[in-house]
Amino acid sequence: MSTAPNAAASRRIDASRLWDSLLQMASFGATAKGGVRRLALTDVDGAGRAHFRAGCEAAGLSVRVDEIGNMFARRAGRDPGRAPVLFGSHLDSQPTGGKFDGAYGVVAGLEVMRSLNDHALMTEAPLELINWTDEEGSRFGTGMLGSGVWAGAYRLDQALSLTDSQGVSVGAALEAIGWRGSAPARHFPADAYFELHIEQGPILESEGTEIGIVTGAQGQVWFDAIARGREAHAGSTPPAARRDALVCAARVIDLVDRMMRARGEAGRGTVGEVHVLPNSRNTVPGEVRFSVEFRHPDSAEIERLAVQFPREAGFIARDCGVALEVRHLYTVPAQPFDPGCIAVVRQAAAQAGCTAREIVSGAGHDAVYVARHVPTAMAFTPCKDGLSHNEAESITPEEAAAGCAVLFEAVLARANRAL
Amino acid sequence: MSTAPNAAASRRIDASRLWDSLLQMASFGATAKGGVRRLALTDVDGAGRAHFRAGCEAAGLSVRVDEIGNMFARRAGRDPGRAPVLFGSHLDSQPTGGKFDGAYGVVAGLEVMRSLNDHALMTEAPLELINWTDEEGSRFGTGMLGSGVWAGAYRLDQALSLTDSQGVSVGAALEAIGWRGSAPARHFPADAYFELHIEQGPILESEGTEIGIVTGAQGQVWFDAIARGREAHAGSTPPAARRDALVCAARVIDLVDRMMRARGEAGRGTVGEVHVLPNSRNTVPGEVRFSVEFRHPDSAEIERLAVQFPREAGFIARDCGVALEVRHLYTVPAQPFDPGCIAVVRQAAAQAGCTAREIVSGAGHDAVYVARHVPTAMAFTPCKDGLSHNEAESITPEEAAAGCAVLFEAVLARANRAL
Repeated sequence: MSTAPNAAASRRIDASRLWDSLLQMASFGATAKGGVRRLALTDVDGAGRAHFRAGCEAAGLSVRVDEIGNMFARRAGRDPGRAPVLFGSHLDSQPTGGKFDGAYGVVAGLEVMRSLNDHALMTEAPLELINWTDEEGSRFGTGMLGSGVWAGAYRLDQALSLTDSQGVSVGAALEAIGWRGSAPARHFPADAYFELHIEQGPILESEGTEIGIVTGAQGQVWFDAIARGREAHAGSTPPAARRDALVCAARVIDLVDRMMRARGEAGRGTVGEVHVLPNSRNTVPGEVRFSVEFRHPDSAEIERLAVQFPREAGFIARDCGVALEVRHLYTVPAQPFDPGCIAVVRQAAAQAGCTAREIVSGAGHDAVYVARHVPTAMAFTPCKDGLSHNEAESITPEEAAAGCAVLFEAVLARANRAL
Repeated sequence: MSTAPNAAASRRIDASRLWDSLLQMASFGATAKGGVRRLALTDVDGAGRAHFRAGCEAAGLSVRVDEIGNMFARRAGRDPGRAPVLFGSHLDSQPTGGKFDGAYGVVAGLEVMRSLNDHALMTEAPLELINWTDEEGSRFGTGMLGSGVWAGAYRLDQALSLTDSQGVSVGAALEAIGWRGSAPARHFPADAYFELHIEQGPILESEGTEIGIVTGAQGQVWFDAIARGREAHAGSTPPAARRDALVCAARVIDLVDRMMRARGEAGRGTVGEVHVLPNSRNTVPGEVRFSVEFRHPDSAEIERLAVQFPREAGFIARDCGVALEVRHLYTVPAQPFDPGCIAVVRQAAAQAGCTAREIVSGAGHDAVYVARHVPTAMAFTPCKDGLSHNEAESITPEEAAAGCAVLFEAVLARANRAL
């Protein structure tokens, strides 16, 4: 950490209260390995929500819940006519998730509210701290569900009828835990949205930088690929007679890596999942199924990749004598964040005495949907070894405090800006 | 089939009796999909053995069984002092095997004996038709077990103490089905060994050639490889921070293919089995385990591959920033067959009016162990699509008859040769 002691001293949040609150929230669904299992709309999610609501109400906030279970904890502004400044994240977790993915942004938001109270600061604009429903998508199969409905990316009735592996619907689960609210699950005018989140990647930690000023979210294009060759005996099948689906897949995996690297530091290209058939050591593989995804901050580059990858992969397959099926699953355009909000985060980092750099979000976040309607930016903090979606996910109290202080300054500055 | 009608007419075996006998043997362990499940030393193997013994005895052969269950069905020669001419194969099958892998060589051997009877031909040398115990190795984990013990490649006590997944030993299984014999399980002087087998590869079928004159068995070198990189988020991990175990493995898979092709038609190099961890589509793979094997008819080439492959793969891993462990499992030297026996097979094919070509066996066979002590050669026949170790394994009655006719002529010629 490169923070000078005076920087930490100048921060207007309570670092130890924040840390205690983070650990309290982590007790809801705590796992033996130090992680969290707080799947969306389960009883343990309900308990975590109740704990959060109690904290909000104790801080004088008024909590409302919308039809998809999103929670909005409002602090009045001096000018009730001004559109609120929003901030928050999500409290649900991966099945074997960490303590900080999502929860950090919500709990730090509550610490911002408490610190404003401590300093008796009333902002011009109202503030709303949000817990979005089911960001992870682990239970019902669709990520960023609450923010997606709010932003109009999903229809409410469709979202409510999604079911988990037991056949329980989102609507039924909301009812069961008592968190189906009455506020319309629909975007409303807001001045800004800020989301604080752990990076879930290695960049900040490796550079010793405290804050990532997130300029936007990468676009993504996802494919499923199936290479179909011919199963054959490894000993008796000569080179010319082989149609080795795995050799084809291997060359396509190499292609994905080369296409990523050709795009420099902003490029992402990954084959994460591979299934080989029959997967027997003395049989030439007859079929290989594998995933392919590319990400890039520029939507035009994503569009190019969506065309270029299947074409180049097809050339490889033809050379291998293998039939390659490349199924385009979906394209998510890049979502640049709002320059004004990005500037607010940059200024807030400076004010909190934090080292900072610009960064593009590789993962999806509620902010990506919110940004469709509200000027948005995010701030990232480092996490140990870049590890997330893992029970070993870890951040330090100092890292948590730095990010929270930046959120405090950003919210305060935005809510008090001259219109 | 390019056989002229007069060629088939000139053959001295009974093609329809052979085919009926093949289908009868396939009824022991027949599967719904048209294959055979006759795992070594199971009750169904025992029933198949009893059926075979009955056929042998009906043909006037005297059957003895050795301590590892190998069956020897002897037909007297005119000169009882001459070393016998041996021929045979194995009756056990893969778990989802075909009707012909192994059984063809044994049943065709019985047809040779029957045809000699039909023609009232007594050979100079005695003949012994062999059913070797547990060639497949599917149940007890070690292939070519009976011939391996006979040849001294395995010690009898060690072989008897091998256990299956239920903890049943080879010795106990032999006792249970009543096929633990008293003859010493040890090689004895013999004049020659011939083994007739389906090719289990595509070469003969693709060329329309009826007989493969097998000049030897390939050498083999087997490895297990583990690429260890670092698990990372596919969206947030930039190219320079990646240590992608799968990209490394993919390049090594490509290397194996290139090293195979650099050795021409005789080269074999295969990665058949791959396991990716965590195998999640948006995670850069942290670990990939995969098998590597090379085969070549020249032992010196196998020795070179055993050194060259780990070295070249290591260069690739270093470039990928991945730790690659290459474990050498074992090297099997190439086993050239006996030039005299090869010449006998070539001459027999000509006599039976069959098209023929020389071929190297890619798979392991009992003949490879027998060849350590007895002049040996094999004959191959085509199989549909080169498919074997598969319930869909298939040959035609004509193909079966051609191979059997060649075995007849080879055995007769060798057993009557002038010493």
